[in-house]
Amino acid sequence: MPKNIVIGGGLAGFHVLEDVLKRAPEQAKNFMLITKEKLGWPSTCGIPFGLAGEYDLKRLEIRPPSYYREKGFDVKTETEVTSINVEDNTVSIGEEKIRYGNLIIATGKKPSLPPIEGIGLEGVYTLTTLTEAFKVEKAMKDAKEAVIIGAGVIGLETAAAFSSRGIKTTVIELMPSVLPLNIDSDMAAIVQKRLEDRGIRVMTSTAVNFINGKEKVESVTAGGREIPADLVVVATGIRPEVELARKAGIEIGETGGIKTDSALHVKKGKTYLSNVYALGDCVEVISGVTYRPVLSALGSTAALQSRVIVDNLLGGKSIVPFYLSPFVTSIAGLQVGSVGATFQTAKNTIGIEPIIGKSTKLTRARYYPGAKQVTVKLLFDCERLIGAQVISEETVAERINLLTIAVMKRLTAKELWLMERCFNPAVSLMTDAIVDAAMDALNKM
Amino acid sequence: MPKNIVIGGGLAGFHVLEDVLKRAPEQAKNFMLITKEKLGWPSTCGIPFGLAGEYDLKRLEIRPPSYYREKGFDVKTETEVTSINVEDNTVSIGEEKIRYGNLIIATGKKPSLPPIEGIGLEGVYTLTTLTEAFKVEKAMKDAKEAVIIGAGVIGLETAAAFSSRGIKTTVIELMPSVLPLNIDSDMAAIVQKRLEDRGIRVMTSTAVNFINGKEKVESVTAGGREIPADLVVVATGIRPEVELARKAGIEIGETGGIKTDSALHVKKGKTYLSNVYALGDCVEVISGVTYRPVLSALGSTAALQSRVIVDNLLGGKSIVPFYLSPFVTSIAGLQVGSVGATFQTAKNTIGIEPIIGKSTKLTRARYYPGAKQVTVKLLFDCERLIGAQVISEETVAERINLLTIAVMKRLTAKELWLMERCFNPAVSLMTDAIVDAAMDALNKM
Repeated sequence: MPKNIVIGGGLAGFHVLEDVLKRAPEQAKNFMLITKEKLGWPSTCGIPFGLAGEYDLKRLEIRPPSYYREKGFDVKTETEVTSINVEDNTVSIGEEKIRYGNLIIATGKKPSLPPIEGIGLEGVYTLTTLTEAFKVEKAMKDAKEAVIIGAGVIGLETAAAFSSRGIKTTVIELMPSVLPLNIDSDMAAIVQKRLEDRGIRVMTSTAVNFINGKEKVESVTAGGREIPADLVVVATGIRPEVELARKAGIEIGETGGIKTDSALHVKKGKTYLSNVYALGDCVEVISGVTYRPVLSALGSTAALQSRVIVDNLLGGKSIVPFYLSPFVTSIAGLQVGSVGATFQTAKNTIGIEPIIGKSTKLTRARYYPGAKQVTVKLLFDCERLIGAQVISEETVAERINLLTIAVMKRLTAKELWLMERCFNPAVSLMTDAIVDAAMDALNKM
Repeated sequence: MPKNIVIGGGLAGFHVLEDVLKRAPEQAKNFMLITKEKLGWPSTCGIPFGLAGEYDLKRLEIRPPSYYREKGFDVKTETEVTSINVEDNTVSIGEEKIRYGNLIIATGKKPSLPPIEGIGLEGVYTLTTLTEAFKVEKAMKDAKEAVIIGAGVIGLETAAAFSSRGIKTTVIELMPSVLPLNIDSDMAAIVQKRLEDRGIRVMTSTAVNFINGKEKVESVTAGGREIPADLVVVATGIRPEVELARKAGIEIGETGGIKTDSALHVKKGKTYLSNVYALGDCVEVISGVTYRPVLSALGSTAALQSRVIVDNLLGGKSIVPFYLSPFVTSIAGLQVGSVGATFQTAKNTIGIEPIIGKSTKLTRARYYPGAKQVTVKLLFDCERLIGAQVISEETVAERINLLTIAVMKRLTAKELWLMERCFNPAVSLMTDAIVDAAMDALNKM
């Protein structure tokens, strides 16, 4: 029987193997994974904290290829699939053709590089693979001044890492505030202040003009000013890696990601192919707030899609019709999370000006040692929750997870205001910031 | 115009004033609060941590009566209401009668004392008011050996406090496991181990026979064994304080708490009285899992009911039809939370044997420093969530809040398994214990 073939050795690809192991380990022998990389399951999300010295970067190869081979999977490393042929259910590796039972495309992403002069100089890096992370780690040893281009999640996490290792760091962002895709400018101001308190220079509304140097980078010119730099990280986003799929005639959506149905089957012509799936950074998904195609590009999205695909491969019936893409990061000790629509998304893509509720309170009773500030921002359409943003030094991830259910179930401001919540002075507040933020919104309805 | 009168100066009573301040501070002059106590807003939940030395017990008077008087409220301290007269809309203070516009009954609780010989000895305390807390704090100074009767929340928090101050401590519980009302015995075993690791002796399935001593307590006999003790805390639960209401002809429910409608109006004869409310530990509520009357008796329940009552007093229309009573505590650094049905409730009161999903994982990526263990237990009827229990050293409160929404909306195991969750290695796990616990339950369905 032909094997189920996974193309791609990123988090998405290996997560399919993980879910097979969790659900039906005896099926391992029916799966083959083909990756261009030498390494096994990589945690790229963990790179910035490794660069900060929180742990050895080597720990980010969560499991090596040998682990999966011992479990019975056929894992081909340093191997490149050259074409997908959905007509005869094969993939080609050069001249060799391998037949598949089911195909799972997990080709991931590539960095989206802006057309800046000098971007090819030595000392200029991106940070999308472990291999690059090791290069940056080496470059950090001698670096004194660094420039990060792009104030998205990876950009800011990396800036905090550089700064914590004594490198003078500047972040340059074209948009007016940091984390522009994730949070509104009022919330971004809290993050920017934290970065500046740590000695990081943040230049927003600033375009990079040139990266300067002969062979090796020497400085970056941005907004007309020259900033010395012996290390530059370009973190201006990613694009889906879809060339194999495109060449195979698989439909690519308007966002540049592979189009799929809710069960992650890809489309060719008028048909969704029942034995070809795609997941992870290379696919586009339907937004659960605008109901239009978007790129989710989160490890958590890939992990969820993996559960769906493996369930279907094992004879189950699972779908995820839309995605809210809850997000969380940790930047210089500050946890920042969001889910659903931001103000700009609501205004520009949904077509409404959302009603805002906001509150800053403590995470625990005011008399309890170690209580931290938390700021909660809730966005409502007329009355129902469509988005949320949270910043604090603790409990942000679980708050975002709660608010994800709240957006999914479209809870009203009144439901959130009258939500039962547990209280103990050591771990929570009698009336939480989420409750007060809902009240604030109710006052404007 | 007659004032709105609040009877009771516990958390519930003062929270009504807090909500008036938050919603319509100009209305303060229309409110009177009458309390037997001398102190203002008390945080009784904070007592055990104060006894542990985390902060000065005095900080648990969150706001003094003078604070509320300055805001315009009429606060009568050390004053006892002797009767409620709903026929002429008055309350009596001895001979004096005061007319009310609306009446809010917040008479709270009293300790439920078991009929044990010697319970009246010196050195035997309960812990339901700040006044008693100060007495216990004083008694701790000379105490060497303590016995706590009752392994509920207050009992265990107090045991941890005593132990942390160098007092040799024994906890005696009649039921087979600790926290018997809140969590199942398998989860309770984790808590008991933590207590024992801290040197606390825990005797379950053990009845107290006598408290021994002449004037002052000297020992406790339990399960036939004598345990030396110079300090005893009786933490065997509480009963609603409803005597005033009962004498006024207000209906008391089968649980011993005041019966109300969903807007917290009390009942007399066949009628819910539109201008008489009750809230807090003195009322019974409808359980959101059994749909039968229960006592909630949580500060968080009182705070929610206060929001509902004040909203109705201000012309809004708010109700809470049923209560899930999410709960969290912190015992010797271990956070323990639950919501909805336990296994025993499901079996004995709902009439089903629930399907269990359970998982123990980490709270953050395994390579991230400081990741803690978390154990999640989920209980499903056929397929929908009816209860949850969580134990960890972090993030328990927000997990319980999320699971409260999940029980409220009766999410299925599959919905929880395919729930979107945010991931960042510094603050969460790619596939959380809640997801794996849902999977575990799905495997049994």
